Amino acid sequence: MQKTLKEIAKFIGGEIVGDADIVITGICGIKEAQKGDITFLANPKYLPFIDKTGASAIITSRQIERASKPIIRTEDPSLAFAKIVSFIAPEAEAKHHTGIHPTAILGKNVSLGKDVAIGPYAVVGDYAIIGDNSIIYSGCFIGHHVKIGNNGLFYSNVSIRENVTIGDRVIIHSGTVIGSDGFGFVTVKSKHHKIPQLGTVIIEDDVEIGSNVSIDRARFDKTLICRGTKIDNLVHIAHNVIVGENSIIVAQAGISGSTIIGRGATLAGQAGLVGHISVGDNAVIAAQAGVTKSVPANTMVSGYPAREHSKALKINACVQNLPKLYESVTKLKKKIEELETRMNADNKSADSCG
Amino acid sequence: MQKTLKEIAKFIGGEIVGDADIVITGICGIKEAQKGDITFLANPKYLPFIDKTGASAIITSRQIERASKPIIRTEDPSLAFAKIVSFIAPEAEAKHHTGIHPTAILGKNVSLGKDVAIGPYAVVGDYAIIGDNSIIYSGCFIGHHVKIGNNGLFYSNVSIRENVTIGDRVIIHSGTVIGSDGFGFVTVKSKHHKIPQLGTVIIEDDVEIGSNVSIDRARFDKTLICRGTKIDNLVHIAHNVIVGENSIIVAQAGISGSTIIGRGATLAGQAGLVGHISVGDNAVIAAQAGVTKSVPANTMVSGYPAREHSKALKINACVQNLPKLYESVTKLKKKIEELETRMNADNKSADSCG
Amino acid sequence: MQKTLKEIAKFIGGEIVGDADIVITGICGIKEAQKGDITFLANPKYLPFIDKTGASAIITSRQIERASKPIIRTEDPSLAFAKIVSFIAPEAEAKHHTGIHPTAILGKNVSLGKDVAIGPYAVVGDYAIIGDNSIIYSGCFIGHHVKIGNNGLFYSNVSIRENVTIGDRVIIHSGTVIGSDGFGFVTVKSKHHKIPQLGTVIIEDDVEIGSNVSIDRARFDKTLICRGTKIDNLVHIAHNVIVGENSIIVAQAGISGSTIIGRGATLAGQAGLVGHISVGDNAVIAAQAGVTKSVPANTMVSGYPAREHSKALKINACVQNLPKLYESVTKLKKKIEELETRMNADNKSADSCG
Repeated sequence: MQKTLKEIAKFIGGEIVGDADIVITGICGIKEAQKGDITFLANPKYLPFIDKTGASAIITSRQIERASKPIIRTEDPSLAFAKIVSFIAPEAEAKHHTGIHPTAILGKNVSLGKDVAIGPYAVVGDYAIIGDNSIIYSGCFIGHHVKIGNNGLFYSNVSIRENVTIGDRVIIHSGTVIGSDGFGFVTVKSKHHKIPQLGTVIIEDDVEIGSNVSIDRARFDKTLICRGTKIDNLVHIAHNVIVGENSIIVAQAGISGSTIIGRGATLAGQAGLVGHISVGDNAVIAAQAGVTKSVPANTMVSGYPAREHSKALKINACVQNLPKLYESVTKLKKKIEELETRMNADNKSADSCG
Repeated sequence: MQKTLKEIAKFIGGEIVGDADIVITGICGIKEAQKGDITFLANPKYLPFIDKTGASAIITSRQIERASKPIIRTEDPSLAFAKIVSFIAPEAEAKHHTGIHPTAILGKNVSLGKDVAIGPYAVVGDYAIIGDNSIIYSGCFIGHHVKIGNNGLFYSNVSIRENVTIGDRVIIHSGTVIGSDGFGFVTVKSKHHKIPQLGTVIIEDDVEIGSNVSIDRARFDKTLICRGTKIDNLVHIAHNVIVGENSIIVAQAGISGSTIIGRGATLAGQAGLVGHISVGDNAVIAAQAGVTKSVPANTMVSGYPAREHSKALKINACVQNLPKLYESVTKLKKKIEELETRMNADNKSADSCG
Repeated sequence: MQKTLKEIAKFIGGEIVGDADIVITGICGIKEAQKGDITFLANPKYLPFIDKTGASAIITSRQIERASKPIIRTEDPSLAFAKIVSFIAPEAEAKHHTGIHPTAILGKNVSLGKDVAIGPYAVVGDYAIIGDNSIIYSGCFIGHHVKIGNNGLFYSNVSIRENVTIGDRVIIHSGTVIGSDGFGFVTVKSKHHKIPQLGTVIIEDDVEIGSNVSIDRARFDKTLICRGTKIDNLVHIAHNVIVGENSIIVAQAGISGSTIIGRGATLAGQAGLVGHISVGDNAVIAAQAGVTKSVPANTMVSGYPAREHSKALKINACVQNLPKLYESVTKLKKKIEELETRMNADNKSADSCG
């Protein structure tokens, strides 16, 4: 596709400095871009590339006033970039299949919206509902009575168990499992008896879920992922967990049963949370943190067991300094012994003096 | 299904306090239950709901003597609940497909028991044996010479590699892989040469394995998961590991090669164990613990590197207190300097006195 | 298959001590081996088995001079073992299907090399290229324009997204996902907007990837796994990561976006690395380490936050000793108080004396 810089600036609402009539034919990273490409500069560490890039134009922040190439100044270059890909270079995005492949198996009373695409060997259970424009890749399993909204995108080999409900514009990457049984047992005389997991999972609109994620169904009621939350690869979400709106859960984090995460929270990579606690709105859990009690809103915790981050940093500094502290204490001990020796000697001399 | 409270009390062996003739039509959590439902109260933190629940009856422990609703007093309300779901509300449990789907592919000399169910696009290799009433969901791969016992339940997209043996009543959730090659290489001049993994995996009766779990086959001999052990999502079990009977392995834990876990052990979430160690019967490994040496039976370890838990707690308390310790040491240093200054002054005055 | 010990010794370049004419019919671990088997002794802890093993012959290192059984002395018994399996006992290795199964779906303009094997219900997208002798198991998804080299081996239910490039002799275990979208969002007024991930993944020759691994595609350009690197189960590799040649990444480790790993590096199990750092050649990251800054070549780091290993060990020893340090400081404090009391008393007596 071809667009002039003027058309692009209009589309993203930015201001051009330089030749507005140049033609853009592609989009690329600042280091890899070539003639004809537009690129963008969001991270200041790439500033040195602004005059070196092979791109024909650059989307920048308002901080940049001019460059040796034409630029489009915007409030948020990353956001502008996120928007223009489908405008300038839709061919750079993943191309999905269309239509219902003849090998796809649809159960009885399945309801499909307009322009649904279902790949080869996907299986859709009885009474499932799939909304308009949703795309299901090959090898997916969609259980009976599952509801999927509009504009969904489920990559290959995703498994959605029965009765799960999924909103609009939800993206699920390959290998992910939604609605497996919660891990619940009652132990009698050291044997573990399975507690039936009768609840479900609800995934609200605009959620994205990475590859090989596991989200378990609730014992009763529901495990709930609220609107706009983004989940990375290999994350574990146990039964009855609730994750609030617009939260971020980074790869390999794990949330134990019945824990409640607020809105806008961030769980960094490999963080682990025990069950039955709550994490407040906008709280940040640092990478690898082991969270054993509830975390107040708008705070950051780190370490194991997780503590308020500034305190954890202070304690960490203390820990790093321990070899010196041991030396100090050893010196103090020696010093005290010296003082005591002197005092004993002084006393003797005082005695002799006396 | 409809049952009277009397029928339910008889089935679970409990004692009714209140109207034994009321009719129960469903089962639900104490917070979500409605008229007609029976619920249960096991966790004391839900005690406030005993008079607020919408349920028509409650299964309680012997501690509870009466309530505003009819109750059934039992030894173990969780266990009673686990039992009655299929008695009262079988429709609340997952409904599985039946029969061999015409698209299922069976290799040569496959042996199927009575009432086996195999979903669409499942693939069963040559000489595989699947026992009575076992259910294989769509997209599963069962390798050649795999043996699966009776009453197995394998959800969608499970992969079982060749020659693996699986007992009776084993449940495996979606995306799980049993029998992938152990991670073994011999490194010569910095190149890694694959060591063939010629062994297998044996999963005994009554094991349950969560979603997206990886259990590797042995180099020789077998990786072994003994009877009654329950494994949560995203767990890694390396080659030649042995896990004893009735152990619990929580989500995202990982066990390195040739490590041996006893009976009744618990590995909490994200715990990691090095290879070639042993964990004794009934030992508990705390969440995120990094276990670098063998753990005696009936002990609990935590932290990194993992230590005996009560010691780890003590050390943790010391660590948390470090900023104060540093202050104390600074004060002591100052105090000693003062004493020394005084002593020097005293000596001078003593000298002058002398 | 039958081989004489002489044939085997010639094949691996070793020296026989004992009867060179005995016939070997199988291969097995030193503990499990029986008459007719050859076994090997690499790990000194198995030395006591050298005279107990049921094997008919043993491959040993040059350190061993003789045994009660015939031996083949070699430079590296593990390497010798790795080589001879296909020579002596090819029937012990996994047996794969051959040919293109009639249910495999090939898109338009797919190019297949010689003797490619594609299992049932595998799906290969348009313009994909699969090299000679490569084996694709059932349920695999190979996206459009994917390139796979010669002698590849992809087990069941692997998902390879569009445009990914994979070299020769690459092994990928079940459930693994290559080319899922990188986890990139731009957040405006607390809503997260997806940043298109337009790049790809390149996997070079001789890489092996375990089961249920997730490797994300790059935002632009590529995520790159270089030649000879071996990756264990459940590993997460984020967008734009580069892993150098012949590195080892153990189970459940995670690497955040744009981090660069050198050649010959080792990331032990459950290690986690933040994004945008580099790890030098031959560096070792200990298990569960939380790496927050770049790691120089040829060093080892451990702990959270990860520090140079010998320093971390020293600090750990200090931490373990903290209860004693607290006692020491308490004693010092008491001692100082005593000294002060004595000094005050001495001064008084000096005063009285004066």
